Amino acid sequence: MSEQGILIVVSGFSGAGKGTLIKAMLEKYHNYALSISATTRMPREGEKDGREYFFVSREKFEQMIEEEQLIEHARYVNNYYGTPRQYVFQQMADGRDVILEIEIQGALKIKERFPEALLLFVTPPSADELKRRLVGRGTETMEVIRQRLHRAAEEAEGITSYDYILINDKLEDCVEAMHQLIQAQHRRVSGNLDFIEQMKSELSAV
Amino acid sequence: MSEQGILIVVSGFSGAGKGTLIKAMLEKYHNYALSISATTRMPREGEKDGREYFFVSREKFEQMIEEEQLIEHARYVNNYYGTPRQYVFQQMADGRDVILEIEIQGALKIKERFPEALLLFVTPPSADELKRRLVGRGTETMEVIRQRLHRAAEEAEGITSYDYILINDKLEDCVEAMHQLIQAQHRRVSGNLDFIEQMKSELSAV
Repeated sequence: MSEQGILIVVSGFSGAGKGTLIKAMLEKYHNYALSISATTRMPREGEKDGREYFFVSREKFEQMIEEEQLIEHARYVNNYYGTPRQYVFQQMADGRDVILEIEIQGALKIKERFPEALLLFVTPPSADELKRRLVGRGTETMEVIRQRLHRAAEEAEGITSYDYILINDKLEDCVEAMHQLIQAQHRRVSGNLDFIEQMKSELSAV
Repeated sequence: MSEQGILIVVSGFSGAGKGTLIKAMLEKYHNYALSISATTRMPREGEKDGREYFFVSREKFEQMIEEEQLIEHARYVNNYYGTPRQYVFQQMADGRDVILEIEIQGALKIKERFPEALLLFVTPPSADELKRRLVGRGTETMEVIRQRLHRAAEEAEGITSYDYILINDKLEDCVEAMHQLIQAQHRRVSGNLDFIEQMKSELSAV
C-alpha cells in the first residue's frame, strides 16, 4: 500500500459534529495529522494562535499567497482562510494522512490540485435531526434559526462535489467509518502505481 | 446509506488466492451473494453445474446473448463466459452486494455499464511471492512455469483499470480489507443521491 500520506478534506453541515468527530479520530488513531488554517479574522474568546487557527494580518496573508505558501485559500465575509503548505507536505512525506477541515470553496480547490485527495461530507442522519441541532435548546430567536437553516440548505447544494458522505449518528461508529474510508483510499490503484510498475517489471524479467 | 446492493468485480493474478478469499468472505459476512457465470466450456472433474458454473451449450449461450440475459460476456480460448442478469439484479434489489469473479474483459464491460461497480484486483504481496506460488512445488516443467509467468505479466497490464488493489498476504486481513472497501462504496455520494435530495428539500421547506 502507498506509503505517502493522503489529504483528507472534511466538510459538513454546521451542527453535524465535525469538530468532535475529528478530535475523536485523532485521539483514537495516531497516524493522522490535523492541518491548522491561517486566517485574517480576529480570534474569538478562548481561541489560541496555532491551535484553532494561525491568526495573521491581511498583509501577512497576502504575502503568503504571493509566496505560494498556501495550498488553497478562500475568502468568507471579508476574511481570508487558507491552508499552509509546509506542514501538510511535511506530514504527508512522513507518511501521515493530513486532515483539513475546510469549506466547499477550499475543498474544490484541493480536489483540483490533488485529485487523489479524499473529500468527506459529514451529515446528521436526517434533516429533522439537523433542524433539532440547529434550533438548539429553545434559546435562539426565530431569525437566528432561520439563518442557520438557510445556511444548511446552501451547504447541502455542495454535497455532490464530495466523494463520500459520513452520517454522524453514533460518534464511535462514525469515527470507525471515517478511519475505514481513509484506509480504503490507500488501496486505490492510482495511489499504488509504483507497486504495480515494480510487479510488472519483475514479472516480465523472466 | 444506500439500500440497493452494489456490484463488486473481483479479478486478480492466478495464484493470488481469489477463490479462497471470496469463500472466506461469504462465510464470514452474510450480506454478500456470489454470481455464478454461465460458460460453454466443458465441466472439469469435480465441477458441478450451478456451483462452479452454469454449463450450457453454445446454442443456448448465443440465445442468452440474443435475449439480453447476460450483463456481460466474453470469449476466451474458443469458449464463452458470461454473467446471467436475473440473479444479479434480484440480489441487488434485495439489498445484497453481488460479487462477480471475472476477468478483465468482463470487468471493463461491467464498469462501462455500471459505473458505480467496485473493481478490485487481488495480488500477492510481491512478484517474488507470486512467482513462488506459480512455480509451485517444483513439480512443474520449465515450459509450464514460463507460461504462467507470461500470463501473470499480461494480467498485470490490466491492473490500472481497477479501482483498488487488495494485497492478499494474510487471508483474514484481506477479508477485512475487502469488506471495508465494499462498505466504503456504500457511502459514496453518487450512491446516496436520494438521501441528499431529501435532505435538501426538507431543509428548504422552512
